[in-house]
Amino acid sequence: MSRIVNVALGQLGPVQRSDTRERVVARLCEMMREAHALGAHLIVYPELALTTFFPRWYLEDDAEIDSFFEREMPNTATQPLFELSRQLGVGFYLGYAELADEGGMRVRYNSSILVDRGGRIVGKYRKVHLPGHAEHEPWRRFQHLEKRYFTPGQRFGVTQAFGGTIGMAICNDRRWAETYRVMALQGAEMVLIGYNTPVHNAPAPQHDDLSLFHNQLSLQAGAYQNGCWVAGVAKGGLEEGVDSIGGSLLVAPSGEVVTRCLSKDDEVAIARCDLDFCAVYKRSTFNFDLHRRPEAYGLIVARKGETLAADGTLWRD
Amino acid sequence: MSRIVNVALGQLGPVQRSDTRERVVARLCEMMREAHALGAHLIVYPELALTTFFPRWYLEDDAEIDSFFEREMPNTATQPLFELSRQLGVGFYLGYAELADEGGMRVRYNSSILVDRGGRIVGKYRKVHLPGHAEHEPWRRFQHLEKRYFTPGQRFGVTQAFGGTIGMAICNDRRWAETYRVMALQGAEMVLIGYNTPVHNAPAPQHDDLSLFHNQLSLQAGAYQNGCWVAGVAKGGLEEGVDSIGGSLLVAPSGEVVTRCLSKDDEVAIARCDLDFCAVYKRSTFNFDLHRRPEAYGLIVARKGETLAADGTLWRD
Repeated sequence: MSRIVNVALGQLGPVQRSDTRERVVARLCEMMREAHALGAHLIVYPELALTTFFPRWYLEDDAEIDSFFEREMPNTATQPLFELSRQLGVGFYLGYAELADEGGMRVRYNSSILVDRGGRIVGKYRKVHLPGHAEHEPWRRFQHLEKRYFTPGQRFGVTQAFGGTIGMAICNDRRWAETYRVMALQGAEMVLIGYNTPVHNAPAPQHDDLSLFHNQLSLQAGAYQNGCWVAGVAKGGLEEGVDSIGGSLLVAPSGEVVTRCLSKDDEVAIARCDLDFCAVYKRSTFNFDLHRRPEAYGLIVARKGETLAADGTLWRD
Repeated sequence: MSRIVNVALGQLGPVQRSDTRERVVARLCEMMREAHALGAHLIVYPELALTTFFPRWYLEDDAEIDSFFEREMPNTATQPLFELSRQLGVGFYLGYAELADEGGMRVRYNSSILVDRGGRIVGKYRKVHLPGHAEHEPWRRFQHLEKRYFTPGQRFGVTQAFGGTIGMAICNDRRWAETYRVMALQGAEMVLIGYNTPVHNAPAPQHDDLSLFHNQLSLQAGAYQNGCWVAGVAKGGLEEGVDSIGGSLLVAPSGEVVTRCLSKDDEVAIARCDLDFCAVYKRSTFNFDLHRRPEAYGLIVARKGETLAADGTLWRD
């Protein structure tokens, strides 16, 4: 099987609250057609792609919250995307809010799926690193209530697809080196990441101007230090009064940016990714079997922060 | 106590085999004086600063190998540096090859010390990530026998000094995200790193042209993702026919480069580092207590590579 994957970035511009899922899916389909015309095997869409980024609002009504979630995938609204995928032979990576039924318990996740070139779901991921806060904080210009609306996922896995080993992550995951490492230890050759990142970060507005730089730095370091391709795809632009960064980009295992989106609107960019290009890194500088030193890394799992142990109790040295 | 540390990068140009330690120490002292004239509280010198980078040679004679090592610190050759430190009130970070006596066993380490403004050793570190190889590989243009000449250190620690929490690392450590994280989990606000990095990397010459980029990327990611200052200092230039990168630089907790050396010779650069600048990152995006998920990081310590468990046996999933 070929080890070349032509990967398209399917960046989305803003999605307003009044936009129906059908309308968003039509935009996703349009980008899939553009990607197909460019020879894409796979198109990567953002986090929570089907609706506006609702964690910016404090909502108390369960039905209103649920209106942003999908109960099944595919469903009526997204079926056209799966059909087009099958028809064109273009796989996709899609983020959405998932309402799961776990033995009668309703559980909400920030999720993503990987769909192969036959329109079949071959991988699913639930976001591990939920940023923001859980309680209403009226002093903020807007909320970031991911810790309120979502239950965190419990693990990073990889999927055999597109001729290689593919890892999945979502948004804030990309800033944590552990994300890439845990997947690289399972052989990840490409990591797909969708995101929604407001330009303004209320707890640290001092670095609003650096948002694009931090995005790129995190993706580049994750790629280089694990010898894998990394695709990061935004939903950007002005959504319900809140501006989010674009800056979607595709990074080679060398850490070099090979393509990027230039707007904050719906935009497709593509690159030809040779999964065999990972080997030069994975067999030299980042040959984990030769060079890693897990015996010196214990604190990474023993400790959550400086003050808390991994189980959340107060850390005792 | 002030939380401002004026940090000088004390980059060294090449040290040839014929250069005596006394001559090298004179160069280090000259840079310390320059740094003092710029208001430095601390000057950071490279890895294995006192001699040429001898792991490029395959040596069999124990006495010859030992000639590159220090049996005590300070010793006669380095005493002038400690005295000047005390006299000027400038602390320093210095890498050297250490020959330790452990209950009658001679053990060789790639080590570094942190010296306070009173000329007292307040911290010591032994390199955890030894790159290269252990056996003679004649096909290489030159050897990189760190795995032969050194025993690996077992842990990353931090030292309370210069009004803050200081971490120490050496060369290849800087490419591993675990290095910074283990120290940040102990509160590191500044990480000091000396290095010797040949431009040519025999197992992966494809990325020789990217050496400076990879150096900078690793230092920037380590700083940003842990909200700490990072100083990386080279011994660069043409040493015994082998060219090494310079590119010494100082990175803020924002990931921004605040100063750098421009040559591959002896060169001092300085920046005013406010340790309180770490807090904006450590209390927001990288508030570990709020946002890390150690329960999802288990593989980082359980597994060495894709195929080996942490204890070196074959990994079984």
